Amino acid sequence: MRRRAPRDWTLLTDYYELNMMYAHFRNGTHDRVAVFDLYFRENPFRGGYTLAAGLETAVEYLQGLRFEPDDIDYLRSLGTYDDAFLEMLREFRFTGDIDAVPEGTVVFPGIPLVRVKAPIAQAQFIETALTNIIGHQTLIATKASRVVQAAQGDRVLEFGARRAHGPDAATYGARAAIIGGCHSTSNVLTGKYFEVPVAGTNAHAWVQFFDDELEAFRAWARAMPAGVLFVVDTYDTLRSGLPHAIEVAREVEAAGGRFLGVRLDSGDIAYLSKKARAMLDAAGFPDAIIVASSDLDEYLIRDLKAQGAKVDVWGVGTKLITALDTPALGTVYKLAAVEQDGVMVPRIKVSENPAKVTNPGVKKAVRIYENATGKAAGDLLMLQDEPLPAGSCVTLFDPVYPWKRKTVENFSCRELLVPVFRGGQLVYDLPSLTEIRDYARHELSTFWDEYKRLVNPEPYPVDLSVELWRLKNEMVERVRAPFGDD
Amino acid sequence: MRRRAPRDWTLLTDYYELNMMYAHFRNGTHDRVAVFDLYFRENPFRGGYTLAAGLETAVEYLQGLRFEPDDIDYLRSLGTYDDAFLEMLREFRFTGDIDAVPEGTVVFPGIPLVRVKAPIAQAQFIETALTNIIGHQTLIATKASRVVQAAQGDRVLEFGARRAHGPDAATYGARAAIIGGCHSTSNVLTGKYFEVPVAGTNAHAWVQFFDDELEAFRAWARAMPAGVLFVVDTYDTLRSGLPHAIEVAREVEAAGGRFLGVRLDSGDIAYLSKKARAMLDAAGFPDAIIVASSDLDEYLIRDLKAQGAKVDVWGVGTKLITALDTPALGTVYKLAAVEQDGVMVPRIKVSENPAKVTNPGVKKAVRIYENATGKAAGDLLMLQDEPLPAGSCVTLFDPVYPWKRKTVENFSCRELLVPVFRGGQLVYDLPSLTEIRDYARHELSTFWDEYKRLVNPEPYPVDLSVELWRLKNEMVERVRAPFGDD
Repeated sequence: MRRRAPRDWTLLTDYYELNMMYAHFRNGTHDRVAVFDLYFRENPFRGGYTLAAGLETAVEYLQGLRFEPDDIDYLRSLGTYDDAFLEMLREFRFTGDIDAVPEGTVVFPGIPLVRVKAPIAQAQFIETALTNIIGHQTLIATKASRVVQAAQGDRVLEFGARRAHGPDAATYGARAAIIGGCHSTSNVLTGKYFEVPVAGTNAHAWVQFFDDELEAFRAWARAMPAGVLFVVDTYDTLRSGLPHAIEVAREVEAAGGRFLGVRLDSGDIAYLSKKARAMLDAAGFPDAIIVASSDLDEYLIRDLKAQGAKVDVWGVGTKLITALDTPALGTVYKLAAVEQDGVMVPRIKVSENPAKVTNPGVKKAVRIYENATGKAAGDLLMLQDEPLPAGSCVTLFDPVYPWKRKTVENFSCRELLVPVFRGGQLVYDLPSLTEIRDYARHELSTFWDEYKRLVNPEPYPVDLSVELWRLKNEMVERVRAPFGDD
Repeated sequence: MRRRAPRDWTLLTDYYELNMMYAHFRNGTHDRVAVFDLYFRENPFRGGYTLAAGLETAVEYLQGLRFEPDDIDYLRSLGTYDDAFLEMLREFRFTGDIDAVPEGTVVFPGIPLVRVKAPIAQAQFIETALTNIIGHQTLIATKASRVVQAAQGDRVLEFGARRAHGPDAATYGARAAIIGGCHSTSNVLTGKYFEVPVAGTNAHAWVQFFDDELEAFRAWARAMPAGVLFVVDTYDTLRSGLPHAIEVAREVEAAGGRFLGVRLDSGDIAYLSKKARAMLDAAGFPDAIIVASSDLDEYLIRDLKAQGAKVDVWGVGTKLITALDTPALGTVYKLAAVEQDGVMVPRIKVSENPAKVTNPGVKKAVRIYENATGKAAGDLLMLQDEPLPAGSCVTLFDPVYPWKRKTVENFSCRELLVPVFRGGQLVYDLPSLTEIRDYARHELSTFWDEYKRLVNPEPYPVDLSVELWRLKNEMVERVRAPFGDD
């Protein structure tokens, strides 16, 4: 892994996390162990699946957690905390256990992406940054995966740095886009940090700088003889840009250089790309590629392809990097259990909204596969100490509508969460970004198309074990009992 | 200003910027001076105005621009650039001039937020990061301003760190939210970096940690005797949370402590806040405040207030920090002029879409005020060397529909762009964040309400001087002439 400048993320936290940490400290409860689940309640983009991402960055955050002297000085200046607490912060490190789904895993609402087991002061404190990092990258990886799906095997380049929400959103967003299947990114910092290919052509400003387009193309070809690609829509795509590109392409190839193709960045991409293809072919450049950019997303790419657009490479910017149609994943971080006299006691949060009632207890997430097809049949949340389903078949039932059942015969199981930290030590081998992308592609291949449809997909079953379902119902009853019926 | 860890932003750029820089270098054109304008084409949120932000961060970026040895090594590994270029990068610094509108200025489509005049290699290279930084913070400041407007003088707290697009989006987004008028932020890192108040209460996890709510509230009060606020919706707001809060509040005040109020985080805020207000008043706590959070934005706050919600403080998270309904500003960076033989020659980019045709030449932005009211009457884009409007009246006309005219008598003028860098040196005194917020509040007061309406506002006039309008039309004609009529 290449050098990344160390980051100053310890105070990237909500003030209330520090206040709760302090209140636990003052009450002497700060060392009691608690378990939190980080998950989301709904797939983004009205889609059928989500692609987990961000774990490596979360590891970097957890490993770097320490309050520097100037952090302590700043916290002292707030006037909220006593000296004993501020002294304790000097020695503060993450010492807990973390289990997480590997980056690139296909996940669904309710599945913990990260499970934290640590002294409550630590487990509570890391909520904000952990949720921020995992939520952001998971969102962008999912969006990228949809765009790549729409491109049906064409290359997708991530081009959004200038429209991202600040430098990190550009850099880590591009990282997530690669996980989602993008071939490369325009962001050089991401290329450097994560050893993935960078890509780019040139801008209209290059062409405008020169007195005319032909001169601009020739100047470009002089500088980039090994491979030139021209942006052809500065003045008029069909009457100026393409004829000039073809003229200079001939000069380039005559001089032993290589003409790669053209980029279309405005106008009707379906119409222009077909015209451009015909012109390039007629000029003897059947291998020249057509790159399209301009407000693309999965829906427009799908429609352009349906209309026969002759595009080889899609440059996708704003709508991918900002996850424009669902720019927040709604990730939450909920208390699941608290240690009492050496035993983990389940905790629940009840809500008027049934979807917001949490799943209590220390849990594992299990994916059931049909052996006959290798496809995933459903996910099961279980209590950690339950045995995995075994035998000749397993029955899944909907936790809200228990009469909705599904029996899977000849199945196998896989636990989704893997150990990442034990006692504050990293015990997980972080894969490279391209390994994660390959894994994500394989993951997606284990799901039926109906779950992956861009619009109105079939909901994938995420069910509870009988034991967890009973525990949850009992706890809800117990919590609500004092208030009677409305 | 407090210490911020130095950032590694030089390679935060699109690969094509580096390629264009290299191509200029190879062609010997890299030192020719060019002028670029950074602006946007449409107010976000279908709103009537935009609040400029991000300049301080852009200054930090420009001052920190240098290629470190490992950046050069990485670029060499790409195999695209020759040694002479890589050597040149070692000495690369920003040496140009920058003019910009101060942060907190009310701006409109087409007004340059930043104007860069520098050798083309530099001016081109900084496009990506500059657009990213200014675009992001301007977007969030504008969203915050709308939310604050809807709150009609109630305090608004920025609570979105966990849902922002990565660490910078949380940190700089919160900075921008303060510019937009938020009173404080939950993000401690923003509090430390920018010396603004941090705010926070506590989470449901605090309450759930304890065996019952009363015990949880008492433990909180023990830790925070100077001022306690309880989150009351963990189990049942009206039947559990509020009665328990009132019970512990009495204990706190009897012991000489202070009960601040309660937070509602779910359920119907209009109904619950009125009930909560009545219960708190009846219990003798008329000064206890009610904080509301839960999926708030400007529209919901406006409606809740219209329904008489008794909320004192609004905690706004996801929808503010992600600018949920318009998560990208669409900022662009366009070449306006190029030096030729010592003269700045205007450049234009023509597009099929008239709104995308650029305004050529080195320009200034002038705001016209009616002296009688102190209100802004319209903005005028002019060529840099034109004299400011003078005399007894000025006539503004719409650049697209020139018959739409407006004459302002007894007016004064103000240039919006101020010098920030000259010859690579910072010549601008950066104001503090709270100064910027005060300035933004004053700025907004100079606009009529019709331009600030949340929904369907009146468009504010942004017009061209006659001279600029003529230049633009001539240049469009000249560029399009070779292609005849369609």
